[in-house]
Amino acid sequence: MNNPVLVEVLRGSLVESRHTGAVAVFDPDGKAVLALGDVDRPVFPRSAVKAIQALPLVESGAADAFGFGNKELALACASHSGEPQHVGLAARMLAKASLDEHALECGAHWPSNHEAMLALARRGDKPSALHNNCSGKHSGFLCGCRHMRIAHAGYIEPDHPYQQVIRRTMEEVTGAEHGEGNRGIDGCSIPTYAVPLKSLAIGFARMTTGKGLPADRAAAARRLLAACMAEPFYVSGSGKADLRLMQAAPGRIFVKTGAEAVYCGAVPELGLGIAIKCDDGQGRASEVAVAAVLSTLFRDDGAVQAALGDLAEPALRNWNGMHVGELKPAEALR
Amino acid sequence: MNNPVLVEVLRGSLVESRHTGAVAVFDPDGKAVLALGDVDRPVFPRSAVKAIQALPLVESGAADAFGFGNKELALACASHSGEPQHVGLAARMLAKASLDEHALECGAHWPSNHEAMLALARRGDKPSALHNNCSGKHSGFLCGCRHMRIAHAGYIEPDHPYQQVIRRTMEEVTGAEHGEGNRGIDGCSIPTYAVPLKSLAIGFARMTTGKGLPADRAAAARRLLAACMAEPFYVSGSGKADLRLMQAAPGRIFVKTGAEAVYCGAVPELGLGIAIKCDDGQGRASEVAVAAVLSTLFRDDGAVQAALGDLAEPALRNWNGMHVGELKPAEALR
Repeated sequence: MNNPVLVEVLRGSLVESRHTGAVAVFDPDGKAVLALGDVDRPVFPRSAVKAIQALPLVESGAADAFGFGNKELALACASHSGEPQHVGLAARMLAKASLDEHALECGAHWPSNHEAMLALARRGDKPSALHNNCSGKHSGFLCGCRHMRIAHAGYIEPDHPYQQVIRRTMEEVTGAEHGEGNRGIDGCSIPTYAVPLKSLAIGFARMTTGKGLPADRAAAARRLLAACMAEPFYVSGSGKADLRLMQAAPGRIFVKTGAEAVYCGAVPELGLGIAIKCDDGQGRASEVAVAAVLSTLFRDDGAVQAALGDLAEPALRNWNGMHVGELKPAEALR
Repeated sequence: MNNPVLVEVLRGSLVESRHTGAVAVFDPDGKAVLALGDVDRPVFPRSAVKAIQALPLVESGAADAFGFGNKELALACASHSGEPQHVGLAARMLAKASLDEHALECGAHWPSNHEAMLALARRGDKPSALHNNCSGKHSGFLCGCRHMRIAHAGYIEPDHPYQQVIRRTMEEVTGAEHGEGNRGIDGCSIPTYAVPLKSLAIGFARMTTGKGLPADRAAAARRLLAACMAEPFYVSGSGKADLRLMQAAPGRIFVKTGAEAVYCGAVPELGLGIAIKCDDGQGRASEVAVAAVLSTLFRDDGAVQAALGDLAEPALRNWNGMHVGELKPAEALR
């Protein structure tokens, strides 16, 4: 099945590039509200499921034991941009578990935030694992291990007890099998499992409604999504799409991006989960697609639609700041 | 017409993302040697046609008057990565025409070369227009204006006399109309015109064979392509695909990338021109596609094929350096 064009890139009045993909908006019972393209095709969700991967941190009691509030929980679900606030908070989370950055097994990379990167370079400094966009998630894993008295070394390996807890949690929430046959290795070295796009949408519908989840898990899920919506900067970073999308309707939109153009999200008041994958893996396209889908879901709320406008049709400017084109949702998304 | 999948992105054993596109390999008489997908669809070539845009610099006699050798001509055709050698040479080209960076109208951006960017930041410095990847092309434009005694201010505008010379040259070489209706603005602010993909391939077949071009233009074209093949670092930069592709068969492959996943190229010994566009605009895909096409064209030369191997099937590694997948030419390109 060929997926439809979801997003067009215009230069002047002509389409320069185009992005195909699939969109799944589902309720917790598995009913499709919107299904474009092949929603049964397995997709590696990558970082888009960090909120599900953070459930054991809350369910185990670790988050309470370490006194984590919204910011810490948001950072545990984050792909952050390595700004000082992110880096500092990850270090403090580790310190609560009597650990430091040397326990992190995610690898190091330069901050994606340009100013943060320049500041580091100007100090003659180099990035550490704390600057890795996944350091909050990994700090959450390490805190979970400490609280559950699991030896943390090798916590990124598929067979490590903590990864096994996460794997079972992912299976239970999404209803999709997570096995060796659909396993890959993520950018931060933990396993990632390719599951049908619609399973991801159903999973996030369950996360936001609690429907189909045990009561403890439902509470943990709601707490994590609420934390992300309350502190969207700690889920992402300055100017990032996740921050701007969640700020468009505070407390009413949860979104999380994943590498290779994945988006997962939820709209609590509608009880719906969202999952999007653009075939080519370009984030610029999935950002426009999720903004367009949210705009459709909030079709009766002009203020939210207006706040989403710039995200659904971002202008393209060149090095002189001239407007040279824009990205637009294609017909399938209008 | 739906374009075929040209490149697949694998994570573990599963396809995570896929890139569709079109490929045109033509001879100078307009005969197709390879045509995949819609080769009649207009494509903005962006920086992939810089060698054609540099023809007036040579044809006008400016290059000789200023004593430009292979390095200067290569830089005039370049999308360079802002390394000190590129920046210094662009400044020296301008100085020959009694100009400096203030005459450049391309805008400034940080070097794409990570080390060059860090070095600039560590010095507490900021990028100038000389660091813009197009500064060599713009320096060539300015030298052309000076030699032809054309006032250079506003040389980026479609109606400026020098842009008109370039526009006519582009029309004559590609055989495609360049008008207001197919015009866009490029990243460096000059006009870019969307023309059929096959016209770009035919244009580069003419550039390398001289067939269909007046004798002076044929000589200028061959001199420019030879300069790029002799000094591929000055066309691109350390580790860049253009450099590595041209190094795979020195003097036997010309390639030039353009933004939004365009590649143009030529194989002099076969008298063929190449033009590729991946629909979604991602350069990682067009790099693999052009390497795969070149590998096919050099099917009888094991050494060239071996040298192209890493480019046609690049490994994907994560932040810990683990092999997590690879890009591969899809069936249509094998």
